[in-house]
Amino acid sequence: MESQLMRCAVVGSGVIGRGWMYVFARAGCLTHVFDQNPDQSKKALEWFDVTLEEDIKEGIITQVEADRCRSLVSSYADLKEALSGVEYVQESGPENLEIKHEIFVQVDEIADPNVIIASSTSAIDVNLIAEGLSGMARCVTAHPFNPPHIVPIVEVMGTEKTDPALVTRTVEFLKRVGQKPVVMNFFLPGYLINRIQAAVVREANHLVTRGAASVEDVDALMSHGLGLRWALFGSFGINHTNADGGVREYYTRYGKAYQDIMNDLDSTPPAFDSDMIELIGKGVDDMLGDTTVKECCRWRDRLVRKIRKLKEENPLG
Amino acid sequence: MESQLMRCAVVGSGVIGRGWMYVFARAGCLTHVFDQNPDQSKKALEWFDVTLEEDIKEGIITQVEADRCRSLVSSYADLKEALSGVEYVQESGPENLEIKHEIFVQVDEIADPNVIIASSTSAIDVNLIAEGLSGMARCVTAHPFNPPHIVPIVEVMGTEKTDPALVTRTVEFLKRVGQKPVVMNFFLPGYLINRIQAAVVREANHLVTRGAASVEDVDALMSHGLGLRWALFGSFGINHTNADGGVREYYTRYGKAYQDIMNDLDSTPPAFDSDMIELIGKGVDDMLGDTTVKECCRWRDRLVRKIRKLKEENPLG
Repeated sequence: MESQLMRCAVVGSGVIGRGWMYVFARAGCLTHVFDQNPDQSKKALEWFDVTLEEDIKEGIITQVEADRCRSLVSSYADLKEALSGVEYVQESGPENLEIKHEIFVQVDEIADPNVIIASSTSAIDVNLIAEGLSGMARCVTAHPFNPPHIVPIVEVMGTEKTDPALVTRTVEFLKRVGQKPVVMNFFLPGYLINRIQAAVVREANHLVTRGAASVEDVDALMSHGLGLRWALFGSFGINHTNADGGVREYYTRYGKAYQDIMNDLDSTPPAFDSDMIELIGKGVDDMLGDTTVKECCRWRDRLVRKIRKLKEENPLG
Repeated sequence: MESQLMRCAVVGSGVIGRGWMYVFARAGCLTHVFDQNPDQSKKALEWFDVTLEEDIKEGIITQVEADRCRSLVSSYADLKEALSGVEYVQESGPENLEIKHEIFVQVDEIADPNVIIASSTSAIDVNLIAEGLSGMARCVTAHPFNPPHIVPIVEVMGTEKTDPALVTRTVEFLKRVGQKPVVMNFFLPGYLINRIQAAVVREANHLVTRGAASVEDVDALMSHGLGLRWALFGSFGINHTNADGGVREYYTRYGKAYQDIMNDLDSTPPAFDSDMIELIGKGVDDMLGDTTVKECCRWRDRLVRKIRKLKEENPLG
């Protein structure tokens, strides 16, 4: 079955690269890690060790599985060695066009022609990252959500030159490693996820800055209301459950009401100046008391996994 | 302990009124139900019976608890009788200003002066519903989320004449019956929840209608991405977990990037015409196959309860 073994490389071992490392190793991929800075690779492997231990304690992974994960990951100081024999490269360098472009140039030169080169970029158009490369047709964005080993969504988009079959291969690969890939057909600022997120952040900020409600209360609207449903269906699926006749009836009946609300939403971006940031910061302090950011992250990750497990154990239909 | 027993009335026994009936009875309130149409009350009580039986089977409620719930609810053909001795009235009539105003006029005439009169309205300004009433100072909106006995959030807003202490009493009462009230300080179209929802619906629709992604993929962005986190924290809490230094660092670092995305969002409401509705309808059909709306609703409700239980059993910090 050795031929079934997937081999991939993670180029850049910061927060996102580390998450990918976990994703690939957990799925049984031979995972090569490269970072310009060998200290960063070392830290990433240490993080992986600690995280696996924590996850053993949490009952998320067994000792045997963790050992296997460790055995599948190795770091390389040389990019050529790191790319040897891999079928998929996940670039996870800093969110900077020049740096990402330079990584793509190097990877495109070294990697076999059939290798997929994917960028973790959350914001930069992959058409720019892969611009001018002879291998532009095998380049894609595969933007994960933070943290990739906890939240499964990945948005996939090819360049204008990318073979649609390669987008399909990317999607298949990401499914095989346990992620939930979705496809974007052309670039828009923010790709898909961060556009939806920006729409929410904008309105949430306006509601607080104009004094309509507190940070804590606007947050609760989501965590005790909208978000409980959106963990199960997106807005289309939820709209479908909002009328006996489904989404067609719902939009027919409430389209006008929605338009009235939408026309009242403030489409100006928040200032993100020191006043606004402090207003929200203070509100978050009040909401969270002395719970640290780290504790919030741990809780979020632990509960996201539990919610995913719930959904796996209780499929729709 | 009889003096501790809370007494309330639900006026209007459609889908939302029924949910309230469940909320109040489950919390141990003596619950009086009134509907202009006695057939509707009868149907509501039948729904309550069936739902309790289903929830016993699901292990959500015991037989003893269900029997107690049933014993606490009674329907009245006469509004005066229905309001006798209650401390809280939850108006849940049709979403129509004239009808709601007329109910408020009648309830305000009959109910004791210290009784809170709350409207379930999702869209109409309670200042209009309670306009001209001598008891305008004891009127509030208490807008639940659908279904009220499953999703706990309730948005509370007083009229311009409402005593702030009465808003506080409403919040306390809603907490006592197990809901999660949040306070809105003044009216905006859509109140709070539906503004956030409208912001998402608008962008989700644009992403599909402009061809950037499929209905299924835009939905998955939320149910396998954003929504998994928003079930735990709202956008402020999540933004706080997105940088080691919390929300202040996050906004300082990414404010400009957010502004760029926000400036690119299309602020025009979707048309909600037959073409758009059919495009989304077809996408939802493709996504859900032969799963019915009813099956989707049941799954949603079952899983929302499980997610809430998860959060109760695994509190933050």
